[in-house]
Amino acid sequence: MQRIGVGLVGWGTVGSGVVRVMLENAGAIESRLGVPLELKRIADLDLERERPVSVPRSMLTTRADDIIEDPDIQIVIELVGGLGFAKTVIRKSLEAGKHVVTANKALLAHDGNELFGLARERGLSIGFEASVAGGIPLIKSLREGLASNRIQTIFGILNGTANYILTRMSEAGLSFRDALKEAQDLGYAEADPTLDIEGIDTAHKLAIASAISFGTPIQLDHVYIEGITGIDALDIQYAEEFGYQLKLLAIARINERLEMRVHPTLIPRNHVLASVKGAYNAVHIEGNAVGDIMLYGMGAGMMPTGSAVVSDAIDVARDILNHTPGRIPPLAFQFDKLNDIKIKPISDVSTCYYFRFAALDRPGVLSKISGILGKHQISINAVIQKGRHAQESVPLLMITHEALESNVRKALDEIDNLDVVIGKTSLIRIEKSAR
Amino acid sequence: MQRIGVGLVGWGTVGSGVVRVMLENAGAIESRLGVPLELKRIADLDLERERPVSVPRSMLTTRADDIIEDPDIQIVIELVGGLGFAKTVIRKSLEAGKHVVTANKALLAHDGNELFGLARERGLSIGFEASVAGGIPLIKSLREGLASNRIQTIFGILNGTANYILTRMSEAGLSFRDALKEAQDLGYAEADPTLDIEGIDTAHKLAIASAISFGTPIQLDHVYIEGITGIDALDIQYAEEFGYQLKLLAIARINERLEMRVHPTLIPRNHVLASVKGAYNAVHIEGNAVGDIMLYGMGAGMMPTGSAVVSDAIDVARDILNHTPGRIPPLAFQFDKLNDIKIKPISDVSTCYYFRFAALDRPGVLSKISGILGKHQISINAVIQKGRHAQESVPLLMITHEALESNVRKALDEIDNLDVVIGKTSLIRIEKSAR
Repeated sequence: MQRIGVGLVGWGTVGSGVVRVMLENAGAIESRLGVPLELKRIADLDLERERPVSVPRSMLTTRADDIIEDPDIQIVIELVGGLGFAKTVIRKSLEAGKHVVTANKALLAHDGNELFGLARERGLSIGFEASVAGGIPLIKSLREGLASNRIQTIFGILNGTANYILTRMSEAGLSFRDALKEAQDLGYAEADPTLDIEGIDTAHKLAIASAISFGTPIQLDHVYIEGITGIDALDIQYAEEFGYQLKLLAIARINERLEMRVHPTLIPRNHVLASVKGAYNAVHIEGNAVGDIMLYGMGAGMMPTGSAVVSDAIDVARDILNHTPGRIPPLAFQFDKLNDIKIKPISDVSTCYYFRFAALDRPGVLSKISGILGKHQISINAVIQKGRHAQESVPLLMITHEALESNVRKALDEIDNLDVVIGKTSLIRIEKSAR
Repeated sequence: MQRIGVGLVGWGTVGSGVVRVMLENAGAIESRLGVPLELKRIADLDLERERPVSVPRSMLTTRADDIIEDPDIQIVIELVGGLGFAKTVIRKSLEAGKHVVTANKALLAHDGNELFGLARERGLSIGFEASVAGGIPLIKSLREGLASNRIQTIFGILNGTANYILTRMSEAGLSFRDALKEAQDLGYAEADPTLDIEGIDTAHKLAIASAISFGTPIQLDHVYIEGITGIDALDIQYAEEFGYQLKLLAIARINERLEMRVHPTLIPRNHVLASVKGAYNAVHIEGNAVGDIMLYGMGAGMMPTGSAVVSDAIDVARDILNHTPGRIPPLAFQFDKLNDIKIKPISDVSTCYYFRFAALDRPGVLSKISGILGKHQISINAVIQKGRHAQESVPLLMITHEALESNVRKALDEIDNLDVVIGKTSLIRIEKSAR
């Protein structure tokens, strides 16, 4: 009986999930695939560490090459992470004629175009469902389930750590620092949380999802990135008074030009994404046929990510069994149809804004500020002046109608230089609707 | 250059969506598929009716056989609906060597096992993504995206008409009749709404989704079905006071035995499905690896259903191009692995309940009722007696802990025969959590 051999390189948290899923669900997997999907070998530099799943010692090795060179292994699962050795593992696996499954969004965001090209030359598949939104079958939905659509917009909550922190800031009124510390204590954030809180991880995922949606190569360099480290809990509370929820949103939209941006974003409280709490991820997609749909689930974690990795391996195994490697192009569109859609830089983006001005409580201040805004074609939708707290300055809150980012920046430069304004203005972008 | 020819049988609302998607998105489809997907012919008995899309007259015919017999057509899209002629179209198409795409949940729920068997014998594919949850790629997610999981539970809002009616009853306090009339006036409900409001359409979809999830043949006969026609707006309001939202839910759960049921269900107001309003559909799935995920979108309508039909045709076209018909078994599991899991009848289901007793306002009534409940192992979680309205009877509301349906029925028989109870007790089942 035919069987498909799988080797795992990198036995961390997600690796343990992959092992558990492959062992615990082996029967269900074989019933679907028709042949066994067999875990043959696991490589990791540290074989002694305590892990939530155990395997026979004979299955273990410290040398990735033992997997890459094993003739009984057809699929290499790369879970090393990062850009260096992970790339070597994937390259060498492809060069050795192995198919690859990976969860490595950083690597694909940087070098995916090159690696997909190499896989194509060799007639091999690369599965990467787990790289975006963890257990949610987002890549498959975009690439196949919505294949008849022209995708117009993606709005994603793609980083559970950042979403957990913002949820706690909103619900418990914690400061950013305290919410981050809590997330670290609970294991939701790493000791070095930079990639998560600076929006970089979200940008990696958006770059991949955007390429698949719009038929372009992966273009990480064109994603505008702003993290959540500068968010004041005060602005979350005030924005809620206006009816908004704050999320770190990945936004990609095509409208002649392609805009891709990651930044803290206010969305109406009744938007489907507003209720996505804690460590959950969700992606709201608009297609010109399907309308709007949303996919929701755990975007990280041992078992959800393991689910995506192993489901991907099943897909690749079907390619092997049917002799149809690369049956679906990795970026959804045929290689020769990928094109560089012109990028809309952040300065050309139009959206609505929330401002908090640190203005002195003097007559004429509102008039000065609104005068500068008007001069830059920024029109005001709502204003609240928070009561006097016996402080010198009072928070002056404002929601604008749609305005051009470059105009907003010019206006805020002028406003922040007024002598009645004694601190830097807080700015948070708003997306009024899904559209 | 190779091209895939498509014929459409049944040019109604969804048919018009299919035509629009195929024509408007032809470029994007070809860029993904690699070859054109070409609409060759449309058959409908009524060619004169005004439609939202126009095609050359030469493309039209009143004879389905013109499509089934056309050697340039490889994929027949069946959108006739119903059980009679639709089945003939699919059978004859398969017998003529054509692959099939259909949105016909009623037909598949009744005769899917037979039709899938026939397709398999002939080495052909049947796509039916559009049959459950419209534009949402649910079938693909269950069958492929979550292929590494053992699926444990499905909770679905699968009928937009029923959900619209319940949403309006909840939000505007409308009676069932008025909400139904409004839905009909707006085109959300048909002149004969029986399939939608009696839960039958939802049951068709649940039977299909359940088979794919749990590895059984389609078993419509084993779905317990209760519609929303008996729902009193009063119970929706009272249940909201207890913190619940009412939905017509499709529930399938495996726990040694398989339970499949469709009935009005109270879910906690903070459950992800509680916020699914109006004509939207959503499905909440639990897998033993992925945890809980939810897919949300439009479950019906010209363009969303057209999106699913054409995406399915693209999938089938890939099977044709790669010579891999039936690449993935229609019911997710290999034919020889499908098995009849023992069914748990509704009488053996344990769940929580909401009761509204029409009790006389006399001393000792609560004691009598709770005595009978206790005798049948039904323990009470919460009780509210609504104030006296100078009526003879007062609504006595109760939420139970988990209890066995057969015990509940025995208890209510006794209670409804008490002389202090002057009307039939209202019963609504509760699902406390996703699990």
